[in-house]
Amino acid sequence: MSVSTLATAPSVCAPLPVLGRDVTVPLVTGGEVTYAALDYAASAPALQRVWDDVAAYAPYYGSVHRGAGYLSQLSTDLFENARRTVAEFLDCRDGDQVVFTRSTTDSLNLLAAALPAGCQVFVFETEHHAALLPWRDARVTVLDAPRGPRQAVEALERALAERTVSIEGGHGPALVCVTGASNVTGELWPVRELAAAAHAHGARIVLDAAQLAPHHPVSVEDLDVDWVAFSGHKLYAPFGSGVLAGRADWLREAEPYLAGGGASRKVTRRTDAGVDVEWHDSAARHEAGSPNVIGAYAVASACKALTEAGFDTLVAREQYLVAKVREGLADVPQVRFLSLFGDDAPRVGVLSFVVEGWNSSHFAAALSAEYGIGVRDGLFCAHPLVRTLLGSDPQTQGECGAPEAAPGEKSLNAIRVSFGAGTPDEHVERFVRAVKELVTDGARWNYRTEDGRCVPDRSA
Amino acid sequence: MSVSTLATAPSVCAPLPVLGRDVTVPLVTGGEVTYAALDYAASAPALQRVWDDVAAYAPYYGSVHRGAGYLSQLSTDLFENARRTVAEFLDCRDGDQVVFTRSTTDSLNLLAAALPAGCQVFVFETEHHAALLPWRDARVTVLDAPRGPRQAVEALERALAERTVSIEGGHGPALVCVTGASNVTGELWPVRELAAAAHAHGARIVLDAAQLAPHHPVSVEDLDVDWVAFSGHKLYAPFGSGVLAGRADWLREAEPYLAGGGASRKVTRRTDAGVDVEWHDSAARHEAGSPNVIGAYAVASACKALTEAGFDTLVAREQYLVAKVREGLADVPQVRFLSLFGDDAPRVGVLSFVVEGWNSSHFAAALSAEYGIGVRDGLFCAHPLVRTLLGSDPQTQGECGAPEAAPGEKSLNAIRVSFGAGTPDEHVERFVRAVKELVTDGARWNYRTEDGRCVPDRSA
Repeated sequence: MSVSTLATAPSVCAPLPVLGRDVTVPLVTGGEVTYAALDYAASAPALQRVWDDVAAYAPYYGSVHRGAGYLSQLSTDLFENARRTVAEFLDCRDGDQVVFTRSTTDSLNLLAAALPAGCQVFVFETEHHAALLPWRDARVTVLDAPRGPRQAVEALERALAERTVSIEGGHGPALVCVTGASNVTGELWPVRELAAAAHAHGARIVLDAAQLAPHHPVSVEDLDVDWVAFSGHKLYAPFGSGVLAGRADWLREAEPYLAGGGASRKVTRRTDAGVDVEWHDSAARHEAGSPNVIGAYAVASACKALTEAGFDTLVAREQYLVAKVREGLADVPQVRFLSLFGDDAPRVGVLSFVVEGWNSSHFAAALSAEYGIGVRDGLFCAHPLVRTLLGSDPQTQGECGAPEAAPGEKSLNAIRVSFGAGTPDEHVERFVRAVKELVTDGARWNYRTEDGRCVPDRSA
Repeated sequence: MSVSTLATAPSVCAPLPVLGRDVTVPLVTGGEVTYAALDYAASAPALQRVWDDVAAYAPYYGSVHRGAGYLSQLSTDLFENARRTVAEFLDCRDGDQVVFTRSTTDSLNLLAAALPAGCQVFVFETEHHAALLPWRDARVTVLDAPRGPRQAVEALERALAERTVSIEGGHGPALVCVTGASNVTGELWPVRELAAAAHAHGARIVLDAAQLAPHHPVSVEDLDVDWVAFSGHKLYAPFGSGVLAGRADWLREAEPYLAGGGASRKVTRRTDAGVDVEWHDSAARHEAGSPNVIGAYAVASACKALTEAGFDTLVAREQYLVAKVREGLADVPQVRFLSLFGDDAPRVGVLSFVVEGWNSSHFAAALSAEYGIGVRDGLFCAHPLVRTLLGSDPQTQGECGAPEAAPGEKSLNAIRVSFGAGTPDEHVERFVRAVKELVTDGARWNYRTEDGRCVPDRSA
């Protein structure tokens, strides 16, 4: 299906209802508009369905696990059912564990804490910091940014082949961590091929699905990944829960991620002023403390809602919106989209770009203040990737009093527009129009930097 | 004020409205009753005010921190304001940090990960596992259960005085971890005196306020504790957030608790296939990943609601309910309340007890199935303490087909009833009546053990 076919497709499904779809915000130039939330890649609005489920459950909320009361048992069942719903959503294998965490970052830090001794970690420099940084006690090999999916697979195979042979004559344990879709470019990564390469070299692989799961079906079994991590707040369920799902063995053998109640089966005093602990070996091992039942239930509700809406339909709609952006700005040469695998590489509804002659913070501030559009500017918690894409030494913030990058100069940071299941056509259409107007006519207001943010200068 | 004065006080304030106050549950004996949530010490229902605040905010939820849009800025401000509200609620010192975590367990695990090298930890065996177990890399001294507040202070002083003198001739760093109110007995601990003892011996102290903060004002400055930890879900804000607040120095010097975006200021590639990271030294250092804005906002809302309701009033009401329980069951010799410091020791609305001739799980199941009352049975994530209190080797679960403990035998586990700002008189009155009826007449239904739970036997 070509891009232009998609952009002019006569009928795509309606967006799923989300909270905040009617919220209006004031414009610095006067009046109000409906807020266009185009920062889904950071945090997506809650699906109305998720909110309704949470609101219906909230009065029945009760203490989980050992509570003897009716609502405690209901809440306990709901929490454990949420685990099963997530396992189905991810198409987990029998025996896989679903651990509720607070976010993808937390999930990957948990896995990092569960690595076997001597484990080597392989990760591309293109990863989000959540996937790049948690492997603190491991020997980490950071691979250069590949310029295509095949190069990615080849680079990984080379690195795995070259790794140290242990003294027993075989390879020690190794883990590959890779994103399913880049949080900067939105580009899809060849997860199945990378998983095959990892396994062929005796390594395991964890999929960072933070940007993939909200946009695409994820099948653990089909992709043959060992673990998958994602966040509720990017999956239309912003109630503080994330997920790590996958193979039980490393998780069972590891020290508990958090030490406390819920993770401990039995605690006894020793004679020497210490205590002995028997830990659980189920998912509870890594979930000490009262679980975030509402957060887990919200994630499960989102999983159900997306499955019921049908990913085929959701993907078609999102691709239609991607095409709207690409086609709409195709004739604006000042706009350069950032891409690692090429402009036509398959991607989710996440696009980053720079505008010649503009500081990105300034541009993003004008989109907000003059058009009611919420995007993100900066380095998107992926500094090495943005550095590679911009070819400059990037800065989180630039001065925004005046466009800082003269024509031809390299940008210091970028703008990201991202959307998903709740985005109506109008938000994307307004965004395209706004970019064109700003590029052609400039901002209508003056801006200044305040506390590191670019804001409208109201003293003028 | 004597106990009997409180129980017959002509006027105490009304309970604060909570979610679920009108929820009815079916009784095994027929009909329905309003659910009496008496397991606040595990998880309290949400205050209606907290829910209303969350519901009002939810449509305005947006991506925090680098989001340029209006709702992102609103959400960022709301999140940082929540930090300030919590700091005020806890009466923090200038320069203290408020870190949002997911629970008390998480907060204490964070502090455990931030201990300076060589730090010794002192903790009573009476602590909740969340406070007893996180100190994994430290040398931990577990102190015996004291039988009074003064003994607690003396035992701590002795232990601190006896600790190893470092080679430099002074003491190395040390941390004392103590609860403000026991999650088993509800008894108040002499926090100010323990803090003074700790400081006099060059140690620091962290207050586990999970059971204290929902019931009593907590002033970091006044108690002179170095840190305080509490959970939102026990503070009427069950949205997955907790707090660690206190001195910034150890937190700033420690490795980030979670590695990822938000905690990292700058990430650059090294030439040797690694990366260099500059970490933030604010609270964000330990909050990698997108923060749980709704959770933090809910906690702040609860802090405001409790402050506005007035702790004097809340404490008076809760003491009135405690007295109702104590007086109501004073003439039931089969009921034995568990206490470390003596039956008349000051306590919050948390009471554990055993019933002669009854397995506690069986008793708790009957309270639920026949009276619609939700309490907790078991060991309350405080195994060594419950063992000490029962004088037996406790078991999490007992068989419930028939009362297992013959009169005079020791119980294997206990029942805990707990309440707070949302509890109406009727719940406590029903509980007292139910206990009396069960003791006098026995259960009206048969029960059996299923999946480790004691449940009504519906096959009869």
